[in-house]
Amino acid sequence: MAEKSRYNYRVEPQDVDFTLRATIPSLGGAILNTAGIDAHGKGFGVDALNADNHSWVLSRMAVEFDYQPVQYTDYEVATWISDYGRVLSTRNFTLTDTASGREFGRAVTQWAMIDLQSRSAMDLSWVGDAHADAVVDAAPPTDKPRKIREVNPSETVEHRVVYSDIDFNRHVNTMRYIEMMLDMLPVETLTRESPVRLDIHFLKECRFGQTLTVGCEQREHSALFEISADGGPAAVRASIEWK
Amino acid sequence: MAEKSRYNYRVEPQDVDFTLRATIPSLGGAILNTAGIDAHGKGFGVDALNADNHSWVLSRMAVEFDYQPVQYTDYEVATWISDYGRVLSTRNFTLTDTASGREFGRAVTQWAMIDLQSRSAMDLSWVGDAHADAVVDAAPPTDKPRKIREVNPSETVEHRVVYSDIDFNRHVNTMRYIEMMLDMLPVETLTRESPVRLDIHFLKECRFGQTLTVGCEQREHSALFEISADGGPAAVRASIEWK
Repeated sequence: MAEKSRYNYRVEPQDVDFTLRATIPSLGGAILNTAGIDAHGKGFGVDALNADNHSWVLSRMAVEFDYQPVQYTDYEVATWISDYGRVLSTRNFTLTDTASGREFGRAVTQWAMIDLQSRSAMDLSWVGDAHADAVVDAAPPTDKPRKIREVNPSETVEHRVVYSDIDFNRHVNTMRYIEMMLDMLPVETLTRESPVRLDIHFLKECRFGQTLTVGCEQREHSALFEISADGGPAAVRASIEWK
Repeated sequence: MAEKSRYNYRVEPQDVDFTLRATIPSLGGAILNTAGIDAHGKGFGVDALNADNHSWVLSRMAVEFDYQPVQYTDYEVATWISDYGRVLSTRNFTLTDTASGREFGRAVTQWAMIDLQSRSAMDLSWVGDAHADAVVDAAPPTDKPRKIREVNPSETVEHRVVYSDIDFNRHVNTMRYIEMMLDMLPVETLTRESPVRLDIHFLKECRFGQTLTVGCEQREHSALFEISADGGPAAVRASIEWK
Protein backbone atom coordinates (compact mmCIF):
# COMPACT_ATOMS: atom_id res chain seq x y z
CA MET A 1 0.00 0.00 0.00
CA ALA A 2 1.21 3.47 -0.90
CA GLU A 3 1.22 6.69 1.08
CA LYS A 4 -0.43 9.97 0.12
CA SER A 5 1.86 12.18 -1.99
CA ARG A 6 2.34 15.82 -1.07
CA TYR A 7 3.13 18.80 -3.31
CA ASN A 8 3.75 22.41 -2.32
CA TYR A 9 2.09 25.42 -3.91
CA ARG A 10 1.73 29.10 -3.16
CA VAL A 11 -1.07 31.49 -4.08
CA GLU A 12 0.80 33.53 -6.71
CA PRO A 13 -0.11 37.04 -7.89
CA GLN A 14 -1.51 35.50 -11.09
CA ASP A 15 -3.90 33.29 -9.06
CA VAL A 16 -5.94 35.98 -7.29
CA ASP A 17 -8.86 38.20 -8.25
CA PHE A 18 -9.33 41.79 -7.10
CA THR A 19 -10.24 40.59 -3.58
CA LEU A 20 -6.66 39.21 -3.47
CA ARG A 21 -7.99 35.71 -2.75
CA ALA A 22 -7.22 32.67 -4.91
CA THR A 23 -9.88 32.09 -7.57
CA ILE A 24 -11.72 28.77 -7.86
CA PRO A 25 -10.11 28.07 -11.28
CA SER A 26 -6.60 28.72 -9.91
CA LEU A 27 -7.12 26.28 -7.01
CA GLY A 28 -8.79 23.80 -9.36
CA GLY A 29 -5.81 24.19 -11.71
CA ALA A 30 -3.40 23.32 -8.90
CA ILE A 31 -5.48 20.22 -8.12
CA LEU A 32 -5.47 18.95 -11.71
CA ASN A 33 -1.81 19.87 -12.15
CA THR A 34 -1.04 17.72 -9.10
CA ALA A 35 -2.90 14.81 -10.67
CA GLY A 36 -0.72 15.11 -13.79
CA ILE A 37 2.55 15.40 -11.87
CA ASP A 38 1.76 12.54 -9.50
CA ALA A 39 0.73 10.14 -12.29
CA HIS A 40 3.81 11.19 -14.29
CA GLY A 41 6.13 10.58 -11.32
CA LYS A 42 4.60 7.13 -10.74
CA GLY A 43 4.97 6.05 -14.36
CA PHE A 44 1.32 6.09 -15.44
CA GLY A 45 1.04 9.69 -16.59
CA VAL A 46 -0.42 10.84 -19.87
CA ASP A 47 3.07 10.83 -21.41
CA ALA A 48 3.60 7.13 -20.61
CA LEU A 49 0.07 6.19 -21.70
CA ASN A 50 0.37 8.08 -24.98
CA ALA A 51 3.15 5.71 -26.01
CA ASP A 52 0.46 2.98 -26.01
CA ASN A 53 -2.05 5.31 -27.68
CA HIS A 54 -4.04 5.68 -24.44
CA SER A 55 -4.79 8.72 -22.31
CA TRP A 56 -6.47 9.68 -19.05
CA VAL A 57 -9.65 11.72 -19.40
CA LEU A 58 -11.34 13.43 -16.49
CA SER A 59 -14.91 12.20 -16.18
CA ARG A 60 -16.18 13.89 -13.01
CA MET A 61 -14.78 16.24 -10.41
CA ALA A 62 -16.00 17.67 -7.13
CA VAL A 63 -14.13 20.42 -5.30
CA GLU A 64 -14.93 22.06 -1.99
CA PHE A 65 -13.28 25.15 -0.54
CA ASP A 66 -14.10 26.27 3.00
CA TYR A 67 -12.43 29.56 2.12
CA GLN A 68 -10.17 30.86 -0.64
CA PRO A 69 -6.70 31.70 0.71
CA VAL A 70 -5.11 35.10 0.13
CA GLN A 71 -2.14 35.92 -2.09
CA TYR A 72 1.22 34.45 -1.01
CA THR A 73 -0.38 31.74 1.18
CA ASP A 74 1.72 28.57 1.08
CA TYR A 75 -0.36 25.41 0.82
CA GLU A 76 0.09 21.71 0.37
CA VAL A 77 -1.90 19.48 -1.95
CA ALA A 78 -2.00 15.86 -0.78
CA THR A 79 -3.22 13.33 -3.34
CA TRP A 80 -4.00 9.64 -3.41
CA ILE A 81 -5.81 7.05 -5.51
CA SER A 82 -8.42 5.27 -3.40
CA ASP A 83 -9.70 2.77 -5.94
CA TYR A 84 -9.80 1.53 -9.53
CA GLY A 85 -13.27 0.60 -10.73
CA ARG A 86 -13.92 -1.16 -14.03
CA VAL A 87 -14.22 2.16 -15.88
CA LEU A 88 -13.27 4.93 -13.44
CA SER A 89 -10.33 5.42 -11.09
CA THR A 90 -10.78 7.73 -8.11
CA ARG A 91 -8.09 10.26 -7.21
CA ASN A 92 -8.52 12.36 -4.07
CA PHE A 93 -7.01 15.60 -2.80
CA THR A 94 -6.84 17.71 0.32
CA LEU A 95 -5.51 21.29 0.41
CA THR A 96 -3.92 22.47 3.64
CA ASP A 97 -2.57 25.88 4.66
CA THR A 98 1.11 25.19 5.40
CA ALA A 99 1.49 27.80 8.15
CA SER A 100 -1.67 27.03 10.14
CA GLY A 101 -2.04 23.34 9.25
CA ARG A 102 -5.72 23.97 8.54
CA GLU A 103 -7.35 21.96 5.74
CA PHE A 104 -9.28 24.46 3.62
CA GLY A 105 -10.18 22.41 0.56
CA ARG A 106 -10.70 18.92 -0.82
CA ALA A 107 -11.50 17.25 -4.11
CA VAL A 108 -12.55 13.92 -5.56
CA THR A 109 -11.89 13.22 -9.23
CA GLN A 110 -12.84 10.26 -11.39
CA TRP A 111 -10.86 9.38 -14.48
CA ALA A 112 -11.45 7.12 -17.45
CA MET A 113 -8.70 5.74 -19.65
CA ILE A 114 -9.47 6.14 -23.33
CA ASP A 115 -8.08 4.61 -26.47
CA LEU A 116 -6.89 7.57 -28.55
CA GLN A 117 -7.82 5.84 -31.80
CA SER A 118 -11.40 4.91 -30.99
CA ARG A 119 -11.87 7.64 -28.28
CA SER A 120 -13.72 5.01 -26.24
CA ALA A 121 -13.25 4.12 -22.56
CA MET A 122 -11.10 1.12 -21.69
CA ASP A 123 -11.54 -1.53 -19.03
CA LEU A 124 -9.38 -0.50 -16.06
CA SER A 125 -9.20 -3.90 -14.37
CA TRP A 126 -5.65 -4.49 -15.64
CA VAL A 127 -4.57 -1.05 -14.40
CA GLY A 128 -5.90 -1.88 -10.96
CA ASP A 129 -3.78 -5.04 -11.01
CA ALA A 130 -0.69 -3.41 -12.52
CA HIS A 131 -0.77 -0.43 -10.16
CA ALA A 132 -2.32 -1.99 -7.04
CA ASP A 133 0.66 -0.68 -5.09
CA ALA A 134 -0.35 2.89 -5.98
CA VAL A 135 -3.67 2.59 -4.13
CA VAL A 136 -3.86 4.23 -0.69
CA ASP A 137 -6.17 2.81 1.96
CA ALA A 138 -7.91 6.11 2.77
CA ALA A 139 -11.48 7.03 1.85
CA PRO A 140 -12.28 10.05 -0.33
CA PRO A 141 -12.33 13.24 1.82
CA THR A 142 -15.89 14.18 0.77
CA ASP A 143 -18.85 12.93 -1.28
CA LYS A 144 -17.97 11.67 -4.75
CA PRO A 145 -18.93 13.95 -7.66
CA ARG A 146 -22.69 14.19 -8.12
CA LYS A 147 -24.39 13.43 -11.40
CA ILE A 148 -26.31 16.45 -12.66
CA ARG A 149 -29.30 15.13 -14.58
CA GLU A 150 -31.18 18.15 -15.79
CA VAL A 151 -30.48 21.83 -16.27
CA ASN A 152 -33.10 24.40 -17.36
CA PRO A 153 -31.04 27.43 -18.38
CA SER A 154 -32.60 30.87 -17.98
CA GLU A 155 -29.60 32.47 -19.72
CA THR A 156 -27.13 31.32 -22.37
CA VAL A 157 -23.95 32.64 -23.99
CA GLU A 158 -22.03 31.36 -27.01
CA HIS A 159 -18.30 30.77 -27.12
CA ARG A 160 -16.16 29.66 -30.06
CA VAL A 161 -13.37 27.30 -28.94
CA VAL A 162 -9.99 28.92 -29.65
CA TYR A 163 -6.33 27.89 -29.24
CA SER A 164 -6.01 29.16 -25.66
CA ASP A 165 -9.03 27.10 -24.56
CA ILE A 166 -7.53 23.72 -25.44
CA ASP A 167 -5.20 21.46 -23.48
CA PHE A 168 -2.59 18.82 -24.26
CA ASN A 169 -5.42 16.41 -25.24
CA ARG A 170 -6.82 18.98 -27.73
CA HIS A 171 -10.01 19.18 -25.65
CA VAL A 172 -11.29 22.29 -23.97
CA ASN A 173 -9.28 22.71 -20.76
CA THR A 174 -11.29 21.82 -17.63
CA MET A 175 -10.56 25.13 -15.92
CA ARG A 176 -11.66 27.03 -19.03
CA TYR A 177 -15.05 25.29 -18.85
CA ILE A 178 -15.30 26.34 -15.22
CA GLU A 179 -14.34 29.92 -16.09
CA MET A 180 -16.99 30.06 -18.83
CA MET A 181 -19.61 28.95 -16.32
CA LEU A 182 -18.55 31.18 -13.41
CA ASP A 183 -18.35 34.18 -15.75
CA MET A 184 -22.16 33.99 -16.12
CA LEU A 185 -22.68 34.69 -12.40
CA PRO A 186 -22.76 38.13 -10.72
CA VAL A 187 -19.32 39.22 -9.48
CA GLU A 188 -20.81 39.69 -5.98
CA THR A 189 -21.68 35.98 -5.93
CA LEU A 190 -18.19 34.97 -7.04
CA THR A 191 -16.40 37.08 -4.47
CA ARG A 192 -18.51 36.28 -1.41
CA GLU A 193 -16.59 34.57 1.36
CA SER A 194 -18.62 31.41 1.88
CA PRO A 195 -17.76 27.73 1.63
CA VAL A 196 -18.36 26.56 -1.91
CA ARG A 197 -18.74 23.18 -3.65
CA LEU A 198 -18.49 22.63 -7.39
CA ASP A 199 -19.45 19.40 -9.18
CA ILE A 200 -18.62 18.96 -12.85
CA HIS A 201 -19.47 16.06 -15.10
CA PHE A 202 -18.04 15.52 -18.59
CA LEU A 203 -20.22 13.67 -21.10
CA LYS A 204 -18.56 14.50 -24.42
CA GLU A 205 -15.31 16.16 -25.51
CA CYS A 206 -15.47 19.71 -26.93
CA ARG A 207 -12.85 20.57 -29.52
CA PHE A 208 -11.09 23.39 -31.31
CA GLY A 209 -13.33 25.38 -33.66
CA GLN A 210 -16.64 24.21 -32.20
CA THR A 211 -19.15 26.76 -30.97
CA LEU A 212 -20.24 26.14 -27.40
CA THR A 213 -23.53 27.17 -25.85
CA VAL A 214 -23.18 27.74 -22.11
CA GLY A 215 -26.48 27.73 -20.23
CA CYS A 216 -26.98 28.83 -16.64
CA GLU A 217 -29.86 28.18 -14.24
CA GLN A 218 -29.48 30.43 -11.21
CA ARG A 219 -31.06 29.38 -7.93
CA GLU A 220 -30.95 31.03 -4.52
CA HIS A 221 -27.67 29.62 -3.19
CA SER A 222 -26.60 27.57 -6.18
CA ALA A 223 -26.42 27.50 -9.95
CA LEU A 224 -26.58 24.73 -12.54
CA PHE A 225 -24.80 24.82 -15.88
CA GLU A 226 -24.91 22.90 -19.14
CA ILE A 227 -22.54 23.26 -22.08
CA SER A 228 -23.17 21.82 -25.53
CA ALA A 229 -21.18 22.04 -28.75
CA ASP A 230 -22.53 22.92 -32.22
CA GLY A 231 -26.14 22.38 -31.12
CA GLY A 232 -25.46 18.79 -29.99
CA PRO A 233 -26.45 17.09 -26.73
CA ALA A 234 -25.04 18.15 -23.34
CA ALA A 235 -21.23 17.86 -23.27
CA VAL A 236 -20.64 19.18 -19.73
CA ARG A 237 -22.95 19.70 -16.77
CA ALA A 238 -22.01 21.34 -13.50
CA SER A 239 -23.44 22.71 -10.28
CA ILE A 240 -22.02 25.20 -7.81
CA GLU A 241 -23.38 25.67 -4.33
CA TRP A 242 -22.56 28.16 -1.57
CA LYS A 243 -23.16 27.20 2.04
CA MET B 1 24.00 48.19 -6.03
CA ALA B 2 21.84 45.10 -5.91
CA GLU B 3 22.23 41.70 -7.53
CA LYS B 4 19.81 40.01 -9.93
CA SER B 5 17.17 37.95 -8.12
CA ARG B 6 16.48 34.40 -9.23
CA TYR B 7 13.26 32.36 -9.01
CA ASN B 8 12.65 28.75 -9.99
CA TYR B 9 9.79 27.54 -12.15
CA ARG B 10 8.87 24.37 -13.97
CA VAL B 11 6.78 23.89 -17.10
CA GLU B 12 3.70 22.35 -15.49
CA PRO B 13 1.05 20.23 -17.26
CA GLN B 14 -1.29 23.25 -17.18
CA ASP B 15 1.28 25.39 -19.04
CA VAL B 16 1.55 23.40 -22.28
CA ASP B 17 -0.49 23.14 -25.46
CA PHE B 18 -1.02 19.94 -27.46
CA THR B 19 2.58 20.07 -28.74
CA LEU B 20 3.56 19.65 -25.05
CA ARG B 21 5.59 22.87 -25.16
CA ALA B 22 5.00 25.85 -22.86
CA THR B 23 2.65 28.41 -24.37
CA ILE B 24 3.66 32.07 -24.77
CA PRO B 25 1.01 33.16 -22.22
CA SER B 26 2.26 30.63 -19.63
CA LEU B 27 5.88 31.85 -19.96
CA GLY B 28 4.69 35.48 -19.98
CA GLY B 29 2.64 34.71 -16.87
CA ALA B 30 5.75 33.40 -15.08
CA ILE B 31 7.61 36.59 -16.04
CA LEU B 32 4.91 38.92 -14.68
CA ASN B 33 4.43 36.75 -11.62
CA THR B 34 8.16 37.10 -10.92
CA ALA B 35 7.84 40.89 -11.16
CA GLY B 36 5.08 40.82 -8.54
CA ILE B 37 6.94 38.50 -6.18
CA ASP B 38 10.23 40.37 -6.46
CA ALA B 39 8.68 43.78 -5.84
CA HIS B 40 6.68 42.32 -2.94
CA GLY B 41 9.80 40.78 -1.38
CA LYS B 42 11.69 44.08 -1.67
CA GLY B 43 8.91 46.12 -0.04
CA PHE B 44 7.62 48.02 -3.07
CA GLY B 45 5.02 45.56 -4.32
CA VAL B 46 1.45 46.39 -5.21
CA ASP B 47 0.36 45.45 -1.70
CA ALA B 48 2.70 48.01 -0.09
CA LEU B 49 1.85 50.69 -2.67
CA ASN B 50 -1.89 50.16 -2.25
CA ALA B 51 -1.59 51.31 1.35
CA ASP B 52 -0.63 54.73 -0.09
CA ASN B 53 -3.34 54.46 -2.77
CA HIS B 54 -0.75 53.85 -5.50
CA SER B 55 -0.20 50.89 -7.78
CA TRP B 56 2.21 49.65 -10.45
CA VAL B 57 0.76 49.45 -13.94
CA LEU B 58 2.50 47.71 -16.82
CA SER B 59 3.00 50.15 -19.66
CA ARG B 60 5.04 48.17 -22.20
CA MET B 61 6.47 44.68 -22.42
CA ALA B 62 8.74 42.86 -24.87
CA VAL B 63 9.34 39.11 -24.61
CA GLU B 64 11.55 36.91 -26.76
CA PHE B 65 11.68 33.13 -26.74
CA ASP B 66 14.33 31.27 -28.77
CA TYR B 67 12.25 28.15 -28.21
CA GLN B 68 9.39 27.09 -25.94
CA PRO B 69 10.53 24.43 -23.46
CA VAL B 70 8.70 21.13 -23.09
CA GLN B 71 6.58 19.96 -20.16
CA TYR B 72 8.45 19.38 -16.87
CA THR B 73 11.46 21.53 -17.90
CA ASP B 74 12.91 23.29 -14.85
CA TYR B 75 13.85 26.90 -15.54
CA GLU B 76 15.08 29.94 -13.70
CA VAL B 77 13.76 33.47 -14.12
CA ALA B 78 16.38 36.10 -13.22
CA THR B 79 15.04 39.64 -12.77
CA TRP B 80 16.52 43.08 -12.14
CA ILE B 81 15.58 46.76 -12.33
CA SER B 82 18.02 48.60 -14.58
CA ASP B 83 16.67 52.13 -14.19
CA TYR B 84 13.97 54.46 -12.95
CA GLY B 85 13.00 57.16 -15.44
CA ARG B 86 10.73 60.06 -14.57
CA VAL B 87 7.63 58.09 -15.55
CA LEU B 88 8.72 54.52 -16.28
CA SER B 89 10.86 52.02 -14.41
CA THR B 90 12.53 49.25 -16.39
CA ARG B 91 12.48 45.66 -15.10
CA ASN B 92 14.37 42.97 -17.01
CA PHE B 93 14.25 39.19 -17.11
CA THR B 94 16.16 36.25 -18.50
CA LEU B 95 14.82 32.68 -18.61
CA THR B 96 17.35 29.85 -18.40
CA ASP B 97 16.93 26.08 -18.65
CA THR B 98 18.18 24.82 -15.29
CA ALA B 99 19.59 21.51 -16.56
CA SER B 100 21.44 22.79 -19.64
CA GLY B 101 22.20 26.33 -18.43
CA ARG B 102 20.98 27.64 -21.79
CA GLU B 103 19.19 31.00 -21.84
CA PHE B 104 16.05 30.51 -23.94
CA GLY B 105 14.10 33.70 -23.25
CA ARG B 106 14.30 37.29 -22.12
CA ALA B 107 11.99 40.20 -21.43
CA VAL B 108 12.03 43.93 -20.82
CA THR B 109 9.08 45.53 -19.05
CA GLN B 110 8.32 49.17 -18.31
CA TRP B 111 6.07 50.16 -15.44
CA ALA B 112 4.34 53.35 -14.43
CA MET B 113 3.17 54.10 -10.91
CA ILE B 114 -0.39 55.41 -10.83
CA ASP B 115 -2.44 57.19 -8.23
CA LEU B 116 -5.48 54.96 -7.71
CA GLN B 117 -7.75 57.97 -7.10
CA SER B 118 -6.91 59.99 -10.21
CA ARG B 119 -5.69 56.95 -12.28
CA SER B 120 -2.86 59.19 -13.52
CA ALA B 121 0.87 58.42 -13.70
CA MET B 122 3.11 59.69 -10.91
CA ASP B 123 6.59 61.15 -11.03
CA LEU B 124 8.99 58.30 -10.21
CA SER B 125 12.00 60.47 -9.25
CA TRP B 126 11.40 59.89 -5.53
CA VAL B 127 11.11 56.13 -6.09
CA GLY B 128 14.48 56.14 -7.87
CA ASP B 129 15.94 57.89 -4.82
CA ALA B 130 14.15 55.76 -2.23
CA HIS B 131 14.98 52.48 -3.96
CA ALA B 132 18.33 53.31 -5.60
CA ASP B 133 19.78 50.26 -3.86
CA ALA B 134 17.37 48.04 -5.82
CA VAL B 135 18.89 49.06 -9.17
CA VAL B 136 21.27 46.55 -10.79
CA ASP B 137 24.08 47.76 -13.03
CA ALA B 138 23.25 45.47 -15.98
CA ALA B 139 21.73 46.58 -19.27
CA PRO B 140 18.40 45.16 -20.53
CA PRO B 141 18.97 41.78 -22.23
CA THR B 142 17.34 42.89 -25.51
CA ASP B 143 15.78 45.93 -27.20
CA LYS B 144 13.27 47.83 -25.10
CA PRO B 145 9.59 47.38 -26.05
CA ARG B 146 8.77 48.97 -29.40
CA LYS B 147 6.00 51.50 -29.83
CA ILE B 148 3.42 50.24 -32.31
CA ARG B 149 2.02 53.31 -34.05
CA GLU B 150 -0.53 52.03 -36.52
CA VAL B 151 -2.48 48.84 -37.07
CA ASN B 152 -4.78 48.22 -40.06
CA PRO B 153 -6.82 45.18 -39.06
CA SER B 154 -8.05 42.85 -41.76
CA GLU B 155 -10.06 40.86 -39.21
CA THR B 156 -11.76 41.71 -35.90
CA VAL B 157 -13.51 39.81 -33.10
CA GLU B 158 -15.51 41.12 -30.16
CA HIS B 159 -15.06 40.05 -26.56
CA ARG B 160 -17.07 41.11 -23.52
CA VAL B 161 -14.82 41.47 -20.43
CA VAL B 162 -15.87 38.95 -17.79
CA TYR B 163 -14.75 38.08 -14.24
CA SER B 164 -12.06 35.61 -15.30
CA ASP B 165 -10.44 38.23 -17.56
CA ILE B 166 -9.66 40.70 -14.78
CA ASP B 167 -6.74 40.89 -12.39
CA PHE B 168 -6.09 42.24 -8.90
CA ASN B 169 -6.17 45.80 -10.34
CA ARG B 170 -9.65 45.16 -11.88
CA HIS B 171 -8.12 45.60 -15.35
CA VAL B 172 -8.04 42.96 -18.02
CA ASN B 173 -5.16 40.64 -17.17
CA THR B 174 -2.13 41.12 -19.45
CA MET B 175 -1.94 37.46 -20.40
CA ARG B 176 -5.63 37.43 -21.29
CA TYR B 177 -5.02 40.29 -23.77
CA ILE B 178 -2.21 38.22 -25.29
CA GLU B 179 -4.45 35.14 -25.47
CA MET B 180 -7.20 37.14 -27.23
CA MET B 181 -4.68 38.29 -29.82
CA LEU B 182 -2.93 34.95 -30.39
CA ASP B 183 -6.31 33.21 -30.70
CA MET B 184 -6.87 35.12 -33.96
CA LEU B 185 -3.87 33.43 -35.61
CA PRO B 186 -3.84 30.02 -37.32
CA VAL B 187 -2.90 27.19 -34.94
CA GLU B 188 -0.08 26.19 -37.33
CA THR B 189 1.49 29.63 -36.81
CA LEU B 190 1.22 29.37 -33.02
CA THR B 191 2.76 25.92 -32.81
CA ARG B 192 5.67 26.39 -35.18
CA GLU B 193 9.06 26.02 -33.54
CA SER B 194 10.72 29.34 -34.38
CA PRO B 195 12.15 32.12 -32.23
CA VAL B 196 9.42 34.62 -31.44
CA ARG B 197 9.28 38.20 -30.16
CA LEU B 198 6.16 39.89 -28.80
CA ASP B 199 5.86 43.62 -28.05
CA ILE B 200 2.81 44.93 -26.23
CA HIS B 201 1.94 48.50 -25.42
CA PHE B 202 -0.84 49.58 -23.05
CA LEU B 203 -2.48 52.94 -23.73
CA LYS B 204 -5.69 52.73 -21.68
CA GLU B 205 -7.12 50.33 -19.09
CA CYS B 206 -9.92 47.96 -20.12
CA ARG B 207 -12.41 47.04 -17.44
CA PHE B 208 -15.10 44.58 -16.41
CA GLY B 209 -18.26 44.73 -18.54
CA GLN B 210 -16.69 46.61 -21.46
CA THR B 211 -16.88 45.12 -24.94
CA LEU B 212 -13.49 44.85 -26.60
CA THR B 213 -12.81 44.84 -30.31
CA VAL B 214 -9.66 42.88 -31.13
CA GLY B 215 -8.22 43.66 -34.57
CA CYS B 216 -5.51 41.65 -36.31
CA GLU B 217 -3.33 42.59 -39.28
CA GLN B 218 -1.52 39.46 -40.51
CA ARG B 219 1.75 39.87 -42.38
CA GLU B 220 4.11 37.23 -43.74
CA HIS B 221 6.19 36.52 -40.61
CA SER B 222 4.47 38.83 -38.17
CA ALA B 223 1.11 40.14 -37.02
CA LEU B 224 -0.04 43.43 -35.52
CA PHE B 225 -2.94 43.79 -33.12
CA GLU B 226 -5.06 46.58 -31.71
CA ILE B 227 -7.66 46.32 -28.97
CA SER B 228 -10.20 49.02 -28.16
CA ALA B 229 -13.03 49.13 -25.63
CA ASP B 230 -16.64 50.21 -26.30
CA GLY B 231 -15.71 51.81 -29.62
CA GLY B 232 -13.11 54.11 -28.03
CA PRO B 233 -9.52 54.79 -29.12
CA ALA B 234 -6.81 52.09 -29.07
CA ALA B 235 -6.31 50.66 -25.57
CA VAL B 236 -3.64 48.06 -26.40
CA ARG B 237 -1.40 47.55 -29.40
CA ALA B 238 0.94 44.63 -29.97
CA SER B 239 3.12 42.97 -32.55
CA ILE B 240 4.38 39.41 -32.79
CA GLU B 241 7.21 38.36 -35.07
CA TRP B 242 8.69 34.97 -35.90
CA LYS B 243 12.28 34.70 -37.02
